[in-house]
Amino acid sequence: MKIDLNADLGESFGAYTVGNDDELLKLITSANVACGFHAGDYSTIPSTIHSVKSNGVSLGAHPGFQDLQGFGRRMMKLAPEEIYHLIIYQLGAISGFAKAQNVPLVHVKPHGALYNFACKDWEAAQAIAQAVYDFDSSLILYGLCNSELVDAAQEKGLRVAREAFADRRYTDDGQLMSRNESGAVLTDTEDITKQVLQIVRDGKVVSGNGNEVYLSADTICIHGDTSEAVEHAVALQSTLKDNGITIKSL
Amino acid sequence: MKIDLNADLGESFGAYTVGNDDELLKLITSANVACGFHAGDYSTIPSTIHSVKSNGVSLGAHPGFQDLQGFGRRMMKLAPEEIYHLIIYQLGAISGFAKAQNVPLVHVKPHGALYNFACKDWEAAQAIAQAVYDFDSSLILYGLCNSELVDAAQEKGLRVAREAFADRRYTDDGQLMSRNESGAVLTDTEDITKQVLQIVRDGKVVSGNGNEVYLSADTICIHGDTSEAVEHAVALQSTLKDNGITIKSL
Amino acid sequence: MKIDLNADLGESFGAYTVGNDDELLKLITSANVACGFHAGDYSTIPSTIHSVKSNGVSLGAHPGFQDLQGFGRRMMKLAPEEIYHLIIYQLGAISGFAKAQNVPLVHVKPHGALYNFACKDWEAAQAIAQAVYDFDSSLILYGLCNSELVDAAQEKGLRVAREAFADRRYTDDGQLMSRNESGAVLTDTEDITKQVLQIVRDGKVVSGNGNEVYLSADTICIHGDTSEAVEHAVALQSTLKDNGITIKSL
Amino acid sequence: MKIDLNADLGESFGAYTVGNDDELLKLITSANVACGFHAGDYSTIPSTIHSVKSNGVSLGAHPGFQDLQGFGRRMMKLAPEEIYHLIIYQLGAISGFAKAQNVPLVHVKPHGALYNFACKDWEAAQAIAQAVYDFDSSLILYGLCNSELVDAAQEKGLRVAREAFADRRYTDDGQLMSRNESGAVLTDTEDITKQVLQIVRDGKVVSGNGNEVYLSADTICIHGDTSEAVEHAVALQSTLKDNGITIKSL
Repeated sequence: MKIDLNADLGESFGAYTVGNDDELLKLITSANVACGFHAGDYSTIPSTIHSVKSNGVSLGAHPGFQDLQGFGRRMMKLAPEEIYHLIIYQLGAISGFAKAQNVPLVHVKPHGALYNFACKDWEAAQAIAQAVYDFDSSLILYGLCNSELVDAAQEKGLRVAREAFADRRYTDDGQLMSRNESGAVLTDTEDITKQVLQIVRDGKVVSGNGNEVYLSADTICIHGDTSEAVEHAVALQSTLKDNGITIKSL
Repeated sequence: MKIDLNADLGESFGAYTVGNDDELLKLITSANVACGFHAGDYSTIPSTIHSVKSNGVSLGAHPGFQDLQGFGRRMMKLAPEEIYHLIIYQLGAISGFAKAQNVPLVHVKPHGALYNFACKDWEAAQAIAQAVYDFDSSLILYGLCNSELVDAAQEKGLRVAREAFADRRYTDDGQLMSRNESGAVLTDTEDITKQVLQIVRDGKVVSGNGNEVYLSADTICIHGDTSEAVEHAVALQSTLKDNGITIKSL
Repeated sequence: MKIDLNADLGESFGAYTVGNDDELLKLITSANVACGFHAGDYSTIPSTIHSVKSNGVSLGAHPGFQDLQGFGRRMMKLAPEEIYHLIIYQLGAISGFAKAQNVPLVHVKPHGALYNFACKDWEAAQAIAQAVYDFDSSLILYGLCNSELVDAAQEKGLRVAREAFADRRYTDDGQLMSRNESGAVLTDTEDITKQVLQIVRDGKVVSGNGNEVYLSADTICIHGDTSEAVEHAVALQSTLKDNGITIKSL
Repeated sequence: MKIDLNADLGESFGAYTVGNDDELLKLITSANVACGFHAGDYSTIPSTIHSVKSNGVSLGAHPGFQDLQGFGRRMMKLAPEEIYHLIIYQLGAISGFAKAQNVPLVHVKPHGALYNFACKDWEAAQAIAQAVYDFDSSLILYGLCNSELVDAAQEKGLRVAREAFADRRYTDDGQLMSRNESGAVLTDTEDITKQVLQIVRDGKVVSGNGNEVYLSADTICIHGDTSEAVEHAVALQSTLKDNGITIKSL
């Protein structure tokens, strides 16, 4: 029994430093590195890749909308063709640094509002899957379990990583509860580790309504933006290991 | 006897359209395509590469300072390390599209203020040469004849294209006269074709002071931003052909 | 009987020049000047204000989403509070130049996707009306006839200019037909002048379905981005004058 | 005997939070608020002004180069006319929020590379002084003691605040030692308080060479980006008070 742990890294920009990349890199197996559009820049990317490499973590691209002020979390209504090109530009940019440092690019995970949009919109999902395929058909595309993004990637013939969230409550139909609803975000370490263990070991999750929902996940997204989040990640890692689950990239 | 003709293309941005790319592509052998920093964007780049490919022209990257408002023509005092990363980011970005369209990237020519800076500053020149080398050591680096950029590229072991300008007057030491000086820019078609012919056939140019200066060039930069500039390019092409000079990419 | 004619101006950016500002300024009575977010920049704004002043045209602000590549035409999902601040920032910026040139700022018209959003979304409309009010309660807010934006402005106690479009077809309920539908944009000079005359003289418009719809407008928006558009504007002006209608700012 | 203490505030951007604004506002009398070009944004500015107002601190604009990634610390070679417009745009933008919150804008202090450039370059200094004058001739312009910026402001008839730095070592001719030289930055609390006391009380400073240099300052710049810097500011404030010096805005 095994699982991949992924996290978003390299989100600093210029003089602005955020995240706990060094600590997270000891806990995860796949890093989603910002590509300079919603976060990150041409200096942050190579230094992040350097750390990813040193820690033996798999390198992934984390492309987002070009909205630094909104950190890529505000929906921008782009046409599918624009999304296609948006993805290729960012995949290319990060690949340049990966190539210069001789690190393989392994996966792609869209960020924030682009991720949410692509999980629910078939045309956006297809545009992303096509862009990844045209850029490098051996890349793994990360998408929310039961999403259009996963379907589009599979239809395209891409390798897919179905992603579950450690600290997000699920609805009865296996979707994420909206952050606006109370109880949507798990904050208790025990709740978080319990949910992940259930997903990985049993392929199930208990929804906000208390129902068991089937959920097959290949990777778990963990957050590390606060010191509390890092603590959760530490606890999660040790729980998984104690239960005989191998933490390993795909 | 042969020469390469290069021009800057793909400098439109969003709703803003500039240049005469379609006409220029019939006249040149190498296209320097803006990478989204001083001009161009993630939609312009792929459509430009598509046209470059259709016309059988060699594809090059044209990276510049990240200053869209100044069109990359305003000096920004970046550290050599920043310049190194600035180049890699842009090379990666354009390569993403080249890869998706299966078009080889052949050369790199820095733009505007970055070009001018790198032609005179050894550290900037080295940073660019190193970035190109680390990204893809088979790329050809374009630089002004007799410049630090050419020296740095050669020291690094890169293939080099020494560039001369069709419509710029030269000084006695083989440098470009400053645009601020009167007579620095040639506007007469005959002057332009005569200067280029002399450079290509005789390896010489007549300076602003009337002296003959030796100048070995592998490529000639032509402009196409005005209809007049396109006319000059047409005249130049026919003059070169009439004199038995083959116009060919490197 | 009188009407105001308004147009969007000052949409050039850096080296990118668009529009026919000089010709339009002879035809209109109110100019909506881009504020540097979706178009325009700190050099374009003052030179546009200079021309607006010289032509005796009323100066207005034309704030938009911060999306230069999309020319402010792509929806960005901002919270009402963000919209409020977005508007104040741009009103302030353009007012700085107006103040330095001693030109009064008279009106505000949101641009593109922000305009469309505010015409249909009550919270966005309120945010804009509140921002205009807090900045300068004597400003006139331009909004589509029968829109939330007009209602919000009136509720706030602002002076309002109800806007109709010269070259857009209307639906039976007095809204603009979507540009995606065929026939949504009028291209024939006669159709355009006829529609405007009917709106101004009779307070009516014939919808896409052939029905008469009541439409009270204080200002007509004309476009000038193509030479054809300028021709339409010329024809429109002479038609209005021939029919004894005074063209005058509010 | 009295002195103004100023600090740079409002330098957060979007999701990126920096500085210790709340603590600094209790220690200073004049706040230089970033205007959205080198730092700050349309949401940060109004919330910063709100805090400035609550603390009874004087509000100033802190305009800089439009280079968020470089935090306005990288020189950009703008023409004087561009600098003039750059300043007006930012003064206008921040004034919009000041107006909406009914807080008077009192002073202007250029930021980073723009400040350094204007302190040594007469044309840049004049452009800034002229912009401030044209925007609002009652504003106070902050500039380094013995600089072109101070001279230009005085020639223009503007009120001037001659600025000294608490933690920077001076040269024999009253200029700041370059940060590249060792010992250029004071890090010891005692050294800092001693230097400031000497400047305020005696109008003198001891240069890096150990010589006494005359220095008349109206305001002292303090930093607050680190917890250490806040400690220095606390110590400085108490030293000044203990020595009977009134800390007061201009």
